[in-house]
Amino acid sequence: MIIVYDVNVDRVVKVHKFLKQYLTWMQNSVFEGKIGKAQLNEIKEGIKNRIKKTEDTVRYYIIKNEKNIRIIEVGKQKNEISFII
Amino acid sequence: MIIVYDVNVDRVVKVHKFLKQYLTWMQNSVFEGKIGKAQLNEIKEGIKNRIKKTEDTVRYYIIKNEKNIRIIEVGKQKNEISFII
Repeated sequence: MIIVYDVNVDRVVKVHKFLKQYLTWMQNSVFEGKIGKAQLNEIKEGIKNRIKKTEDTVRYYIIKNEKNIRIIEVGKQKNEISFII
Repeated sequence: MIIVYDVNVDRVVKVHKFLKQYLTWMQNSVFEGKIGKAQLNEIKEGIKNRIKKTEDTVRYYIIKNEKNIRIIEVGKQKNEISFII
């Protein structure tokens, strides 16, 4: 799955730290990873408690099978060391 | 497909304007849309000419069939108009 978020700067660190427990940080406000259904529910629940629905947006892209997605990266690799925000 | 990018502020507007010709802006530095193979090549070529490979990163997620992806959005809808997929 892929998660992208656009949250207020006050909540960025909180959301980043939370998602890092489940997924791999790719760049900016983008995480990726393979997770099961139970974990997805945990993530959704955790996000709900960490964002302000009237100001922030989180988009979940759930891809059924990794064979169905092709990922191409161009440019500098951002996630060398788990560099914080 | 989904494109996420992390480019230097000097090139953000240029990249944003370019991608807007092909895809729908969803949030921050995230675009989505349905495109064909020829368009994908055009995008890749255009991006290559607009970013600095040593500083910027662009990730392309190409999903073979829209049935294979489920999108969930939580929070504020950022892109009110022309919201596809």
